[in-house]
Amino acid sequence: MKYWVLGLLLWTACGWSQGDDQKQIDAIFEESLTAGKSYDWLNYLSNRIGGRLSGSIQAEQAVKYTKNQMDSLDFDRIWLQPVMVPKWVRGTPEFAYIESKPGITNNVPITALGGSVATPAGGIKARVVEVKSLEELSSLGRDGIAGKIVFFNQPMQPGLINTFEAYSGAVEQRYKGAMEAAQYGAVGVIVRSLTLRLDDLPHTGFMTYGDLPVEQRIPAAAISTNGAELLSTTLKLDPNIRFYFKQSCKSLSDVESNNVIGEIRGSTYPDEILLVGGHLDSWDLGDGAHDDGAGCSQSIEAVRLLLATGYRPKRTIRVVLFMSEEIGLAGAKKYAEEAKRKGENHIFALESDAGGFTPRGFSFDCSSENLDRILSWKPLFEPYLVHRFVSGGSGADIGPLKDGNIVLGGLRPDSQRYFDHHHAENDTFEHINRRELELGAAAMSGLLYLIDKYGIVINSKG
Amino acid sequence: MKYWVLGLLLWTACGWSQGDDQKQIDAIFEESLTAGKSYDWLNYLSNRIGGRLSGSIQAEQAVKYTKNQMDSLDFDRIWLQPVMVPKWVRGTPEFAYIESKPGITNNVPITALGGSVATPAGGIKARVVEVKSLEELSSLGRDGIAGKIVFFNQPMQPGLINTFEAYSGAVEQRYKGAMEAAQYGAVGVIVRSLTLRLDDLPHTGFMTYGDLPVEQRIPAAAISTNGAELLSTTLKLDPNIRFYFKQSCKSLSDVESNNVIGEIRGSTYPDEILLVGGHLDSWDLGDGAHDDGAGCSQSIEAVRLLLATGYRPKRTIRVVLFMSEEIGLAGAKKYAEEAKRKGENHIFALESDAGGFTPRGFSFDCSSENLDRILSWKPLFEPYLVHRFVSGGSGADIGPLKDGNIVLGGLRPDSQRYFDHHHAENDTFEHINRRELELGAAAMSGLLYLIDKYGIVINSKG
Repeated sequence: MKYWVLGLLLWTACGWSQGDDQKQIDAIFEESLTAGKSYDWLNYLSNRIGGRLSGSIQAEQAVKYTKNQMDSLDFDRIWLQPVMVPKWVRGTPEFAYIESKPGITNNVPITALGGSVATPAGGIKARVVEVKSLEELSSLGRDGIAGKIVFFNQPMQPGLINTFEAYSGAVEQRYKGAMEAAQYGAVGVIVRSLTLRLDDLPHTGFMTYGDLPVEQRIPAAAISTNGAELLSTTLKLDPNIRFYFKQSCKSLSDVESNNVIGEIRGSTYPDEILLVGGHLDSWDLGDGAHDDGAGCSQSIEAVRLLLATGYRPKRTIRVVLFMSEEIGLAGAKKYAEEAKRKGENHIFALESDAGGFTPRGFSFDCSSENLDRILSWKPLFEPYLVHRFVSGGSGADIGPLKDGNIVLGGLRPDSQRYFDHHHAENDTFEHINRRELELGAAAMSGLLYLIDKYGIVINSKG
Repeated sequence: MKYWVLGLLLWTACGWSQGDDQKQIDAIFEESLTAGKSYDWLNYLSNRIGGRLSGSIQAEQAVKYTKNQMDSLDFDRIWLQPVMVPKWVRGTPEFAYIESKPGITNNVPITALGGSVATPAGGIKARVVEVKSLEELSSLGRDGIAGKIVFFNQPMQPGLINTFEAYSGAVEQRYKGAMEAAQYGAVGVIVRSLTLRLDDLPHTGFMTYGDLPVEQRIPAAAISTNGAELLSTTLKLDPNIRFYFKQSCKSLSDVESNNVIGEIRGSTYPDEILLVGGHLDSWDLGDGAHDDGAGCSQSIEAVRLLLATGYRPKRTIRVVLFMSEEIGLAGAKKYAEEAKRKGENHIFALESDAGGFTPRGFSFDCSSENLDRILSWKPLFEPYLVHRFVSGGSGADIGPLKDGNIVLGGLRPDSQRYFDHHHAENDTFEHINRRELELGAAAMSGLLYLIDKYGIVINSKG
């Protein structure tokens, strides 16, 4: 009888608890979909401020705006964390054409890659060599490359369902192409835009020269996919055609900027920190609505949803909007460095940086014990179809926090449309669907709630 | 030993079979995403033909175009099935305003509901009574209604994750509102557009007068959600304001049109028919890309994908593009009637009529034996994240085929954006994402392949 009663009590306790959790998560989704703030906040960030290149005036406006936004909510403490960030400026609009015969030219849309040097003031005109990979470049050697523009034309693979995998498979040409081509004497680099669409929009993105001396650096730009197809076809007809491009971008000295941080102090375990965030900077071509204005507004909203539904966190919850993710992760590195210096105990960090699309689930980078615990929560998210929980990466900004015990998580939205907009002029607010954005914010909030309530498994070997 | 060998053989056979199925489905998705035709076909249907109202010249152009499309593929037989369909025409553009004081007016966007009568040539101006439901209408009675315009203002519920549920919960006011209001002496009906967005686009849709005598029919129109909010607010400030609207739509005599049918004859069981389809007609405001041009091009593509990947169906597979779904389902009824008359044995029918968005899975209306068999195939679709298989409705056009044994299925895409576009002028091709459309076509093709290969469970009690 005693055992039976105990069993009943346990069953009731568990049943109650599961029911409570579902009720809390239901309340979060209801609040987000009926009285959500993420869409209006993102509207302001996108349309009133716009593209927020690291080191730009817009980036500073975004710092002020999001700090004020948090000031209007019930955060216990809000502060700016100073960080020196790169400042690269695009200058006047780029210009490029294919010259199939002297005097016969077709203009094509290009955009300088982030971090690239300028062309000489009069531009560069040279013969072109098309390659599909760094390996192919290397096989051509100095004889095949010197004095030419290297055209990296590896498309993303459309057969991959996760478009981020297709991106990863093709991004090396953008990141390292100029550095490698310069070593064979190339005079410039043109890279096929990393998108699965065929269209006229060039997609920018970060690139590196590594340790290459300044005088050996060559300018690099992305060409739209239609432009890439045209260039490739024209080259097949006549390998002697020439390509012209001109850009005036340059890197200035680093400037001081800030990560924006807001904190709700935990009632019971204030020293255990749960972080939720995205990055506040963006590229300059669009307004950075998907990358990553969405993640910033969702992160603040995720905390607001907890408070609006009457939940008081037991642990400390911190929103961090990282600066300069697109150009080298300065904000993320600074945050992790300061956290380490202060001996802060981050048990969980969650990033949204894959677009404001319908959320499909989360990916986690953590111990198998923690993954098992998290997987047991999947049924709570199934009514919202955000229940694909997988092991995998998390987010670039929270990566530097990785240590033995921390659970890192990333929101995983539907990825089909992301690279239509990524780093291009059509990454704009009009391509945000309110409900999709709100579902993501709610899912993030629900996960914060569960980790706050149940904590994480501490592995003593960690 | 003998048992062990038998076990191994069975295991090998099953393993092989599962592997073959995955290979076939992988090939289908690869073909769709790398060499798919659905997007280009839908581009033509949407941008070269446009909105395809039942009985219109565009609907006839769509019949010819899709028949030609199938003629260019390896169908064994293609034919047009004649059907008499309603012809309702919109006439000159509608016009409406709120008159808060004599001479002080605000124009608001409206669109006549499909099937509605016109207003008198000079329009209607009358006081307005706002209700949220047919019950509220009935409670007001003739005293509260007679001589007025009834304004049905029940919003769709944003908290529901499946937006089709939110639509179902609010569509009665559009379908029956005028019929009910007329019986209390109302002079006209204005219905809040069925969308979850607040914007300026009115959304049309079908409505009925039931058995109401012609002389008692009153005009009905949809107002944009922003217009509905304005009207409601204005009414709260002053219940005596008046509303004016004018529309010149009318129903003409039925005209002959066609269902478009293409068939691949089964090699082994030609008398067992698998149907895949969508509806060819659309509303006239946009170009009907999502509703249901997407379903039509996906249905033809689903069959092309089978052939392009080298699969020869054992059973007969038939593409049916139904006419006049939006205005009373004449095509669907005709098809089912003819199938019954000829004693045709349809074992499976699959419809895509929920937009060309990222597919999340399928819903099935079938026996539990068949559902169990189908559920066992879910892992084959998991790599494509189209593995949410649920019991539920299928599609309006295939509904009339329901009998004891047939398995009915519906493609279930992500529903968050559907009602942003549904029946409005922004249901256009530019809101179609190529990959999302192609994933849907591939998922449909994969399901056809499995049902063709394994058949369905026949319940003798059926």
